[in-house]
Formats: sequence, structure tokens, C-alpha cells
Amino acid sequence: MAVYTMVDNDQLADFLNKFNTGKLTSAKGIAEGVENTNYLVETSTDRFILTLYEQRVDPADLPFYLKLLDHLHAAGCKVPRFISDKTGAQIHELAGRPACLIEFLSGVSLSHPSATQARATGEALGQMHTALHNFAEERPNTLSLNGWQKLADDCTPAGLNTIADGLAEEVAHELAFLRANWPSDLPRSVIHADLFPDNVLMLGDNVTGLIDFYFACSDIRAYDVAITHSAWCFDSEGLNFDTAVSAGLMAGYNAAHGLTQAERAAMPVLLRGACLRFLLTRAYDWINTPADAMVTRKNPIAYLKRLNFYRGQGSHLFQSA
Amino acid sequence: MAVYTMVDNDQLADFLNKFNTGKLTSAKGIAEGVENTNYLVETSTDRFILTLYEQRVDPADLPFYLKLLDHLHAAGCKVPRFISDKTGAQIHELAGRPACLIEFLSGVSLSHPSATQARATGEALGQMHTALHNFAEERPNTLSLNGWQKLADDCTPAGLNTIADGLAEEVAHELAFLRANWPSDLPRSVIHADLFPDNVLMLGDNVTGLIDFYFACSDIRAYDVAITHSAWCFDSEGLNFDTAVSAGLMAGYNAAHGLTQAERAAMPVLLRGACLRFLLTRAYDWINTPADAMVTRKNPIAYLKRLNFYRGQGSHLFQSA
Repeated sequence: MAVYTMVDNDQLADFLNKFNTGKLTSAKGIAEGVENTNYLVETSTDRFILTLYEQRVDPADLPFYLKLLDHLHAAGCKVPRFISDKTGAQIHELAGRPACLIEFLSGVSLSHPSATQARATGEALGQMHTALHNFAEERPNTLSLNGWQKLADDCTPAGLNTIADGLAEEVAHELAFLRANWPSDLPRSVIHADLFPDNVLMLGDNVTGLIDFYFACSDIRAYDVAITHSAWCFDSEGLNFDTAVSAGLMAGYNAAHGLTQAERAAMPVLLRGACLRFLLTRAYDWINTPADAMVTRKNPIAYLKRLNFYRGQGSHLFQSA
Repeated sequence: MAVYTMVDNDQLADFLNKFNTGKLTSAKGIAEGVENTNYLVETSTDRFILTLYEQRVDPADLPFYLKLLDHLHAAGCKVPRFISDKTGAQIHELAGRPACLIEFLSGVSLSHPSATQARATGEALGQMHTALHNFAEERPNTLSLNGWQKLADDCTPAGLNTIADGLAEEVAHELAFLRANWPSDLPRSVIHADLFPDNVLMLGDNVTGLIDFYFACSDIRAYDVAITHSAWCFDSEGLNFDTAVSAGLMAGYNAAHGLTQAERAAMPVLLRGACLRFLLTRAYDWINTPADAMVTRKNPIAYLKRLNFYRGQGSHLFQSA
């Protein structure tokens, strides 16, 4: 959420000369997305996002993201395209970093989405899953069961217990449950894996863009629904479950794609996995980010509360009627 | 250079409803300017900068800046205007901060301005000074002689000497020289006081905007020329003086406004004052910013080198032909 690499405007003007995108007229460093450096760049013809990839994105993964977004765009999904330069290249280097010029999409991400907006998002997620039926590329998910165990180990029981009394035991118990119950035979696909409201651009009730695919990976397809559900259906503290948003999200998803009977049956486990994944990445960041750092730390406990919801009253949400 | 206050897009959409500026279509936090929070906001009709004022800007000064920019705009200077809402108000509150919606100007600030671009900037500075002949508002400059002394005291001799051996003595010597020689009878005006290349937007060789007036204050008018000269005519290390950029800047200024004989005679002292001012604010930030902070620390020594230039070979630059 900061500008890590400074690009001076002379460098930027030179860089843009590689493209058929007009002359540079404005460039602003923007605070957005995962830990990359982003500039909102205007030229005489259009606007773009220029992304310089910092540590969190492996440059070896860039071709996967390019193919994924090209595939989704060709299938009619609203995602930003990577712009090709005059030679057709989409991956560049700028200021010593891998860099891509990316289509700018209008729209704002909502802090308090309505049920109607959740429905539109569920539909966009379903369309994306439909479009990915014939996408053959793969990228392993490092943030699945083994990754969660590693995160928990890296946090250490003592570290987890500084966040909340007894959290280490809760995590160990949940990890054991998920190891024993994680489904192995559900349909797999490339998934977005991080479809928070931040990563959906909307104008009014219409989705204008799904963005920030840098966690996209191959995993159980319905797990993407679980992640999205846990991200959309609660207030930021994880305290209040919003029945209408949940119903909207699922109505949209079911209209565009839908869950099989086996997927519905597995949803309670997938939802618990989604909660543990974000609980653990947030816990890791919480323990390893100084309280006075300029980066906002997200509270892991908001995901413990969601987890408790899905273990309790929310465990019947996806039972067939 | 960061987003200090988060404004969610629902808040922002509500805020924009106060204005006749169309519906929100995009908002990106941008890393720009002094220590304020800035968003680049797009609506269905136009683009704007939304500024939320953090600690460094005193809200009591906002009416001064508004009047200044309205005055300059009315006089034909290229500066961003503060947008009035439906009731005519220009100063608002958002997310607990004073906030203003400001005209977006195209253009990029240059890292390596050419002599032609320096000429255009000198001309814009001169036009601004001409426009300010009949601007009656005042704002004291807290970063003049007494302010420099206070900064030096706050840095402490030991602190200054951690930056460079003997720097404390150099600063004390220069402060004594400036106290003894600072001119008292030169024309005064409101000045920009921070017209670095960062704060000039250009398209090609044309100035499209002078921005970031938050150091603007009442002071010796030619001191503004001295600040601009010291900011434009060297590489960032302060090592190489660029004769062509200097000549361009002054040709532009002289074409639009010009220096009196008395101002020319005082320029060597004003230039030394400009150097000490930036040396000291940079030294203060250097001493008080952890080396690993995300904020870039600017090297104070680059201004010691400029100071040495103006004390030596540069001391004859403004002698009349």
C-alpha cells in the first residue's frame, strides 16, 4: 500500500515510448493492491496502471497472470488486460523491477456492499469460473493446508497467544480438523483466491472489474466461493453476519455457475479453511509488523469470529433445501 | 508521501454529493506532496485531487491558500483551483480532517529539466510575482532567519556533526553571516517558497501548473527566485551547477518580471539563505527519521554543496553586466 520504487518522469516517458499509447501527460504513484508499486499513468490517449513488482510477486509467475487475464478477457470477463508494447512484449523492466502496463478500469471498491452488489459480484465470480473450465495453466497454492501449518509454526504458539489468549490451541485444533476433513475429490480450477470487496470495482450496482489476481492459483473451485463468502458477508470486525448479502452473493453465483451437491456438502469445511487462511496470514503480519509501521495491520481476530460463526450457527448455510 | 487517512468509497461518494461534479467513478490514494493525504478522484464529469490536511498544514492557514490560488487563477496563472460546493464552501471536513477538492491539472514534473523548461518555469514564477503585486493577504514565514536558528538548535551541534564532520560549526558560521547581512529593504510579496521541479507540472516545454503552495508566505520576493535557482540549477547531489538551466531560468524570470539592481546585489546572500534553509530542514528530518522508515530522507549535504558553490564561484552570478 505504498510506492516502494520511485520512477522519475523522464524514465517513465522513455518507457511509454515502447508502446503505442500516446505521450505521457500525468503520473501519480498510487497506494493500492498487494505489495507492489503502482502508478496511475495518463497519456494523450488513455489511462493505465503501471505496476512494478516488488518482493511479494515472483517474476516467474508473471506469464501465468498474463495468460489468465488474457483468457478471462477473451471470455468476456471484466478484468484488466496487460498492454503489449510495439513488439508484442507484455513484461518489461523499469527501475530494476519487472514492470507491466495494465489497462485502467473505472469503478470503485465498496466498503459496505449491498445485497444487490453482492449478487453482481457472485455472478462475476461464477462467470469467471465458467470461463476457467478450459484454462489449462496451473499455479500451485502455497497458502493451502501445508502453507497454513507453516504459517502457524512461523507465528509460534507464544506469538499467537499474544494476539488472543488460547489462540494457539484454537489454531492447532482447527488445523487438525481441516487435515482430517479437507475434501480431495472436488472439481479444481484456477481460482482468484482473494476476492475481497477491495478487489471488485463497481459503478453503482454493476461490476466493472475484478482486479488483483496475484494470489490466483490452482485449487478446489468451491474454495474460491468460500473465500469470497467469508470476505463479503461480515462487517470488518467479523461480528455481524449479513444474511441478505450472503443470499445475494450465492444467488448471483448460482445463476452464473452454481455448486454441485458435493460442493455444497463440503462448504462448511471450505469456509472454515478460508477463515483459517486469513486468520493465519493476518496473525503472521500482526506479529511481524511493528505497531507504529505505516502499513495498516488487519486484525486476525475478525477471522476467528468468522470461523466461530461458520462452526456454529453458520454451519447449516449451504445445506440443500 | 503516503496515504495517512483512509477514506472509504461510500464516504467519498457522499462527500462528492455536496458538489456539482458528477458521480464518483474512481478513487486512488496517491503518494504526493507534503504530508497530506491525497486522492485522485474521478467523477462522471471530471478529475480532481482530494486533499485531507494532516499535521503539517495548519487548518487556520487554509483560507490564505484559497485566496492565494483564487487570486493567481484570476490573474491567468496556471495553478489548481479549490472547487466550491453547491453552497459555495471550499473547506470541508472528511474522515475527521479538513479537506478540499482541488482541480486536477495534467502535466508531469521533471527530474532533469532542460534549459528551455527552466525558462518556462522562470517565466511562470515571474508571472506569479507580477500577479501578486496587488495581493494583500499575508502569512508569516516561520522558516526564515529565526526559524533557521531554531532548527539548528533543535538539530543540536552533536546531531549536525553526525551528518558531516564540522557541520555544526559551518552552520553556526553561516547563520552569523546571514544575520549580519540579510537584506531588510527589498520588495516583499507573497512567495511560493518551495518551487522545486516536483512542484511544476509541464507538458513538453510548457508549464501546465505550479502546485503545492503550502509553504507560501510573505517574504522578500527575490528570495523566491533564490530558492528556485538553488532547487533547479544543480543535480540532486548538489555537485554540478548547470549554467544553461540557470541562464534559462533567469531569462524567463527577467522576461516576465525581473530583478531590480538592489535585488541583484542581494542575490548572493539570498541564495546562501535558501541553501541554509533546505540544509537545515533536511538535517532536521535526517536526524529525526529512522534510516529504515518508508519516507525517503533527502541528503542535507547536497545543500551544503550548493551553499559552497554560491559562496565561491557562484557568488558573481548575479553581478550586473
